[in-house]
Amino acid sequence: MKAAILCVGTELLFGQTVNTNATYISRQLQLLGFDVLYHHVVGDNPIRLERLIDICFEDCDLIITTGGLGPTEDDLTKEVIAKFVGDELVYDEVSLAGMKKYFSDTHRQMTKNNLKQALFPSKGKIFPNNVGTAPGFLSENDGKYIIALPGPPREMTTMFEKEIIPYLSERENAVLYYKIIRTYGIGESVLETVLMPLIHGQTDPTIATYAKEGECSLRVTSKRGTIEESKSAVEDMMVKIRNLIGEYIYSEDDEDMAEVLVKELNEKNLQLSSAESCTGGLFAGRITGVAGASKMFGRGYVTYSIESKVEDLGVDNLLIEKYSVVSGEVASEMAVKALEKSGSDVAVSVTGVAGPSDEGDIPAGKIYLGISWKDDRGNVKTKVQLMNSGRHDRKKNREYAVLAMMHMVLKLVRSL
Amino acid sequence: MKAAILCVGTELLFGQTVNTNATYISRQLQLLGFDVLYHHVVGDNPIRLERLIDICFEDCDLIITTGGLGPTEDDLTKEVIAKFVGDELVYDEVSLAGMKKYFSDTHRQMTKNNLKQALFPSKGKIFPNNVGTAPGFLSENDGKYIIALPGPPREMTTMFEKEIIPYLSERENAVLYYKIIRTYGIGESVLETVLMPLIHGQTDPTIATYAKEGECSLRVTSKRGTIEESKSAVEDMMVKIRNLIGEYIYSEDDEDMAEVLVKELNEKNLQLSSAESCTGGLFAGRITGVAGASKMFGRGYVTYSIESKVEDLGVDNLLIEKYSVVSGEVASEMAVKALEKSGSDVAVSVTGVAGPSDEGDIPAGKIYLGISWKDDRGNVKTKVQLMNSGRHDRKKNREYAVLAMMHMVLKLVRSL
Repeated sequence: MKAAILCVGTELLFGQTVNTNATYISRQLQLLGFDVLYHHVVGDNPIRLERLIDICFEDCDLIITTGGLGPTEDDLTKEVIAKFVGDELVYDEVSLAGMKKYFSDTHRQMTKNNLKQALFPSKGKIFPNNVGTAPGFLSENDGKYIIALPGPPREMTTMFEKEIIPYLSERENAVLYYKIIRTYGIGESVLETVLMPLIHGQTDPTIATYAKEGECSLRVTSKRGTIEESKSAVEDMMVKIRNLIGEYIYSEDDEDMAEVLVKELNEKNLQLSSAESCTGGLFAGRITGVAGASKMFGRGYVTYSIESKVEDLGVDNLLIEKYSVVSGEVASEMAVKALEKSGSDVAVSVTGVAGPSDEGDIPAGKIYLGISWKDDRGNVKTKVQLMNSGRHDRKKNREYAVLAMMHMVLKLVRSL
Repeated sequence: MKAAILCVGTELLFGQTVNTNATYISRQLQLLGFDVLYHHVVGDNPIRLERLIDICFEDCDLIITTGGLGPTEDDLTKEVIAKFVGDELVYDEVSLAGMKKYFSDTHRQMTKNNLKQALFPSKGKIFPNNVGTAPGFLSENDGKYIIALPGPPREMTTMFEKEIIPYLSERENAVLYYKIIRTYGIGESVLETVLMPLIHGQTDPTIATYAKEGECSLRVTSKRGTIEESKSAVEDMMVKIRNLIGEYIYSEDDEDMAEVLVKELNEKNLQLSSAESCTGGLFAGRITGVAGASKMFGRGYVTYSIESKVEDLGVDNLLIEKYSVVSGEVASEMAVKALEKSGSDVAVSVTGVAGPSDEGDIPAGKIYLGISWKDDRGNVKTKVQLMNSGRHDRKKNREYAVLAMMHMVLKLVRSL
């Protein structure tokens, strides 16, 4: 079943608001087993709107529109749809009564132009709106159909959840199942090359790769006769994928790396602390962004200057003078000192040049990561990792360092 | 001049990412004087992509595409466009050399499928990409034209700012001048009300307001006969705007608040330190994200636990017991201790409940901010601010607290 999403609204074309409606509806439709072929955004122009509806119906079985159901002159979605499917607009008494009540409940004046919001295609099915004035509706079109929803995101998502999902689930008998795998440490083109035996000529399940900042995700989808068959097909494919790239997988449930880290440290009752130089607090900020972090994270040091490394952490000034502040030795020492001062089970550190400029003969992107922990006998162990991207992008270097730090901790914790 | 935006990417149709590219490009095109008629999103399907290009060119003079310029089999934008305009793809030696260098600089493996990223329509104009592997390009189409940009937002916006805006300005002979004012501390509807005498019935210049997370921006635009006339008209309007809302303006050049803060503290040779609890390092991370921060920022404390506040900062345990950790007294003390320990000129602190849950009888969103500095006589002064949003949104509460902390520092520094 193929679907298109058609958003009516000039504010979107002006670039004033981001189109979160299309994203939301897309995700919901995918879960219900629809193949979303198009997103369209068009202004309050009946000719262009009608044209797009026509084009969408050539390829798609379902069109979902948002917007254009308001009381103003520019709101034309209903009129255009009714004309397209060859229906006429009539007053729906239930909606009219509901609207009058909504206005009196919220102590607001109902104006004459609100009346048009109670007009509907005579053969249409109406979906009530409990958080706004414009009900949605559905019109049939020769076995295909079009659903019109209000534009304001909260009204649209409420109606979608309460009315549209149940309606579509029943009408379409959805049997799609999918999993999203998150990987770290492998680039998208290498990933695709390694998975090519599974991807090439694929029919069902399908594997789609997509790169996000510094990471890669995989979506494995199956649409079979029953949900059990779909699930089984995906699980079989997951086994094959693990065989090829298992070492790079950090989540099989589309979880953020920080969420996975906080969850696993809490499960193992481990404490983490941090000592950050060039990432300047972003690592600690990322970890503490996860609800439940306070159980595994108590303190972080942002030792941005050399004085701070010496005074707040207790790093030996002579070590810095000997090896330079951007070195494996200093990264290691920062992690060890953070471990000792905080009493945590694991401590992670970072020192480097984020950019955009190089620092003397140290190139931008040269960043040392350190990690420190105690082994079974209580001995302090450390490990150091070097990133040397050659990149002059301050934001990217810091973000990728935070990602790498989280991954170092995760790998260590999974080995303990 | 009419334009359409065509985004290629199945991840958008899956609802996995929000289409920020279309919003950004729309806003830029509007500023350049284009009328944006459509946004379209389509997947990696050459037939549908070609069809949409055809439809767009019926109404529009310019199409901007994003995405589909990557190295994988699914990346087909170039092939489709070349076929549409009747051109052939050839290797561009400059791009190929640039790509090889990019891979060797970043110590990464270039694979065979990356080669296609150096293929371009032979009659096309190429736009270099300095933050990624895929250059963009332009193809002419009988007086109309199509520009293809990379999909990843950072690569796209960088290319747009460096290459496309100058190109389009020159090609379309834009004599438009604008300024973007950033304000803090005034809501969008109040802002619009206060500025109504200037906005009502406006022709040129125009004032457009738009709200971002926790702040409001204003764009003042003029399009006159010459650039000097446009500039003059905008400057005159700026005077009127300053008279009405001057106290809320923190930048007249669309600068980020952190950039303004770092710049002004550096100008005054002042040092800043921080003690963060619920924002967990995000404040320090935000400040250090600005190049040049190391001159004014040396250390930040992420004292997430009570132990850390006591041990790392030296906050009196009895104070915490008496007033509770989420209190003006503790916020004030955290700032004073950070000031003393670091020797900085200003120190800022935060303690509160970010959410999503309440903590006992302290509601989510209740956050105290503290600031500490020395007056002319060397006496330590402090000030406290309370935020009590009643919001359960952890991310928003933390982000708004960071914004408020930066604003507190800026206000203080501007008064010194």
